Order: sequence, then C-alpha cells, then structure tokens
Amino acid sequence: MVRNHLITSLEIFKSSGLTDIPKTTRCNILKTVGVLWRADSCLEGVPELFQKLKNEKKNVFIISNNATKDIQKYVVKCNKMNITIDKNYIISSGFITRKYLLSNLKLKDKVYVIGSEFFMQSIQSDGFDVINIIDENPLPDESYYVEGKYAIDASSVFAVIISLDLALTYKKIATACYIIKNNANCLYIVTNTDTSFPMSNGNDLPGAGSLFASIKENINICGDKPYIEIGKPYTHMFEYVYEQFNLKNSRVLMVGDRLETDILFANNCKIDSLLVLTGITNETNYDSILKKYKDKQKDIKPTYILKSLVKTEKKNILNL
Amino acid sequence: MVRNHLITSLEIFKSSGLTDIPKTTRCNILKTVGVLWRADSCLEGVPELFQKLKNEKKNVFIISNNATKDIQKYVVKCNKMNITIDKNYIISSGFITRKYLLSNLKLKDKVYVIGSEFFMQSIQSDGFDVINIIDENPLPDESYYVEGKYAIDASSVFAVIISLDLALTYKKIATACYIIKNNANCLYIVTNTDTSFPMSNGNDLPGAGSLFASIKENINICGDKPYIEIGKPYTHMFEYVYEQFNLKNSRVLMVGDRLETDILFANNCKIDSLLVLTGITNETNYDSILKKYKDKQKDIKPTYILKSLVKTEKKNILNL
Repeated sequence: MVRNHLITSLEIFKSSGLTDIPKTTRCNILKTVGVLWRADSCLEGVPELFQKLKNEKKNVFIISNNATKDIQKYVVKCNKMNITIDKNYIISSGFITRKYLLSNLKLKDKVYVIGSEFFMQSIQSDGFDVINIIDENPLPDESYYVEGKYAIDASSVFAVIISLDLALTYKKIATACYIIKNNANCLYIVTNTDTSFPMSNGNDLPGAGSLFASIKENINICGDKPYIEIGKPYTHMFEYVYEQFNLKNSRVLMVGDRLETDILFANNCKIDSLLVLTGITNETNYDSILKKYKDKQKDIKPTYILKSLVKTEKKNILNL
Repeated sequence: MVRNHLITSLEIFKSSGLTDIPKTTRCNILKTVGVLWRADSCLEGVPELFQKLKNEKKNVFIISNNATKDIQKYVVKCNKMNITIDKNYIISSGFITRKYLLSNLKLKDKVYVIGSEFFMQSIQSDGFDVINIIDENPLPDESYYVEGKYAIDASSVFAVIISLDLALTYKKIATACYIIKNNANCLYIVTNTDTSFPMSNGNDLPGAGSLFASIKENINICGDKPYIEIGKPYTHMFEYVYEQFNLKNSRVLMVGDRLETDILFANNCKIDSLLVLTGITNETNYDSILKKYKDKQKDIKPTYILKSLVKTEKKNILNL
C-alpha cells in the first residue's frame, strides 16, 4: 500500500486542500487513450472539462505515444466528441520522430521504417527515401532467406525507425535487425515502447514496444546496443512543447494513466503529474505495476491520483 | 579472462592429459549448427569423426533446438555430407514438443501454433486440431483489429505453441497474446528461445526466441506469466534420450557452440560439456557473452573448450 498526495474533490481544478494548483497551472499536458477516451468512446465529462480549461485560458496539450495516425484524425475525433483543440496542440511520437529525422539526416537519405502506411508516407513526404514503402513481397518463402535476398546494402541506410505496424512480418523484423547489425553508423530509433494499446471491446493489442522487443532481443546477442526512444517516458515531446510554446514561466501538470510511461515522463521532465485510473492502471493492478518496476519505483510515483479525470462516481478519493 | 580445463590435442578422443574421456564416454551428445555444419557447409573432418566414434561403438545423438524441419531432412543432409546417422538419434525441440502435447492433451484438442508449415502439419497429423493451419487472411487491414475480429474463442484453445516462423505476422502475435491472456488454463509453450540462427553467408536471422520476446513483452504487462520451454537449456530433450536409450550407466559429453543454451543445457542435465568455437561463440565474444549472462556465469561455463571439434588449424589450444 502506497500513500500519495490526494486530490479530494471530484474535479482537479476545484480541488480542496490543493487549491494552489489551478491558480498556478497555466499549461496542462494531457494524454489521450485511457484519459480522454478509450478506443472510440469519450469518457464522460471530458468535453465540459476541456471547455472549462479553455475558459480559464489554460493551454491544453494532447501528448500521445501513437505514431500510426495523422494528427488531423485526432482533431476530427476530438471534434466529434465536442472537444475543441487546435492541431498544433496535439503532439505525437510519430510527429516528433519526423522532426528528429529532419534535424539529424540530410534530405533524400535512405531510411527503413517499420510502421503504418501513414507514418511511412509522412516520412517520404518529408523528403526521405523510405526504401520499404511499397513491399511487393511481404511474406516470401524460405528460399528468400536461404538465398540471402534479405541482405540489402545496409551501409546505404541512414536510419531504422521502429513503430507500431499492424502489417508487421518476419521479413520486416529480419531486415531491420540486419541493417542495424551491419551498419554501426545507422540511427536506431523507436517511436515508443508501449507494450500494448487498448481496444473499444476491453481487450488490448500488442504495441510498438512489444514488436520492438523482438528486434532488441535479436540485436542484443552480445550486450545492449543503444537506441533512441522518442515517446514517453523520454522527454523529446516535452522539449518540443517547451520550446515551441515558451513554457519557461509556466507550471505544467501531466495527466496520464500509465505509471511507466506517463508518470515517469512527467518525472523525467520535472513536472507535476496526475494519475487517473480510467486506463491501464487501476486500483487492482497499481501495486503489481509498482512491483514490476521496482528498480525505478521512486520515478514512477505520481504527484496526485484520481479515479477519473472528471466526475464519474461518488467516491473519487483513493487510499492507495 | 577465464581459465578452463583444456583439451590439448586436436581431436577430443585422443586428448592428451585427459585420456580418461574416451574410455568412459559411451554416449556423446552433439548439436548441429555451429558444431557439425554452418548452413549447408559441413565443417572439415566431421564425417571422419562420426565414423571413428561409430567404430568405437559410441552412440552419437544430434540434439537440435530447431522446430521447423522434418528430422528426415537432417538424415538426408547428414548423408549428403557422408555422415551416417539413424533418424532416431536425432532429437529436435519440435519433436519433443509434439511428445509433450501427446502426453498433456487429449486428441482433437484445439491448439494455436506459430511455426513452420511442417511443424503445424505434424501437430495436425498427431491428432490435434490446429486452428490456424490454413490462414486465408495473413495480413488483414486495420478494420480486422478495430472490429475485434482477432478475438476468437480463447476458452476453446488448449495450448499455444510458439516457434520459429518465417511467415510470422502481427496477426499471429496478437492472436497468441489474446488466447494466453484470456484463457488461464491454456498451455503456453515455446519450443526454444534461441535469439538467432546462422545462415551460410555468415549472417544470422532472428530465431524463435526473438519472436517469442514480442509475445512475452505484451503478456507480462503485470508480472511474469510462466511458460514451458522445451529446447535447450531446458532438459526435456535429454530426459527423452536418457529414458529411451537407457543412459543410466553411461558417461555423456555434450558438444555445443552456445554458452547460454548448449553449455547451460549440459550443466542443467548434470553432464560434461565441450564448447567448440566454430559457431556463435568465439575467442572475441566469449568474455562479453559471459558478462551478459553474469547472473548465471557459473552455470554457463563449459567443462572443456576447443577451437573446433576436429582438426582445422595448428593451434587448437585456448587460453581463455
């Protein structure tokens, strides 16, 4: 049992006992899945909260580890749920990965991408040569491997980028591993390492972190090879917001549902955090998740915990 | 630098200083890749060694973590290389996995298999209902997942078996994870966890262990879920040989090229081991591999080390 600071009211910005938060919090960083919605269902009370924050002239950002979707789709999704948000206030790991490539590579450089069609096309349209954007032969037979056809010219590739890909194949895993092992200078990037993502039916599917585990396992035969992780819990997305919106004199609250990504992210960024229990973390698994990440237990503890971001049931106070 | 017992001669069974080995060793367990051959090339001197052991009435077994191929193919491969071996003396993790299923399930039970076509068909022909043996739609589009079509009736499945599959897709990973997470009684088996396997061109490809890492990463969100591992370093294959060939009063030597599978296997089986440096482990990476597995360093130390199983160069003595 872990005792945290609690927000005792049902709405965070009228919290009793912690009334200093609303006064000084000028920017609020939120995340999407598990906090605002779950698959296609908006969580009750969220649109009203957004409007309230807007009226109070507080900036609200949506920070998502997703790298598969067009940000415009989030805007449309938000609008459908009566949440008004500008495209520039939605930051995804895919978007920041593209910024990272633009800062670190030259245009027309060859890159190998495991990711959604949209993500690959975005990188292509940024001016890079995505070598696998059209794969005529996604499931080759054994001869393809026996004859070494997977062994493309690794030295010509400047970056391998790994993200969630619902069309993942063995061939893609093998090619990514081959390039990284045969070109020490190649950038080795993963958009995020979320092990799963939730579906509307209550199930979840393997996330980018799950697919990445397979590549990492093969590459790290003789010790760990360092890679660049763009998404939470790493600070790349916050650094972008911080610079772009000049947050220097602002107090920022990160609201999230995952200890090992959202809350660790907030702590890495040295900002306050609020854990809500409407997503991955709940009263039942909270302790076991803390236990799983026992080496960094201190770093994944939230500043505040609420059952839900908005009023959903009478008892919103937790004694974790 | 680690000092081991050394066999100073160029052939293990005429070893000077350790002449007791050939006299008391009645059975010798060997492995294939990296010891006898690499992809399709037999290592020099191996056929002669096999003949010599046969003349001395020593049993030679080939123990392989491979679960993709028909054992008969190994016999043919051996014959082509002038190595004579009976089918019954070749034991694969695929073969022992099938034995395991026959002992633990009822005929006609439903099983979900990630593996080669041959492996799936073998399990089918053993009398089990392999639900994914023909997959009409290996690379479905996003709607397949959004609409929850991957959510088959998990409670009807008795075992999920994971092995190397060159036709692996995201769909297979997602389905395996879904069944294991939604049916606590389902057997959860991996044939082997080799992270890679070598190709004739000197490269290697991701192995079953690499693919399995992705499934494990998704399943273990809240702590480790136990699974059954059939291949080396676990003792299932040795137990079978031990019973089947009545090895009770024999001295056995395991020859292998991987510390974390072959040598750990020998130590788990409480038999002597000989590490040869013609496969994965070599003089350069020996220390870094020991370092990687530092928690079980004692368990992965071989009894003997040789550069090669047979005479390949003048200096076969190692001072690791």
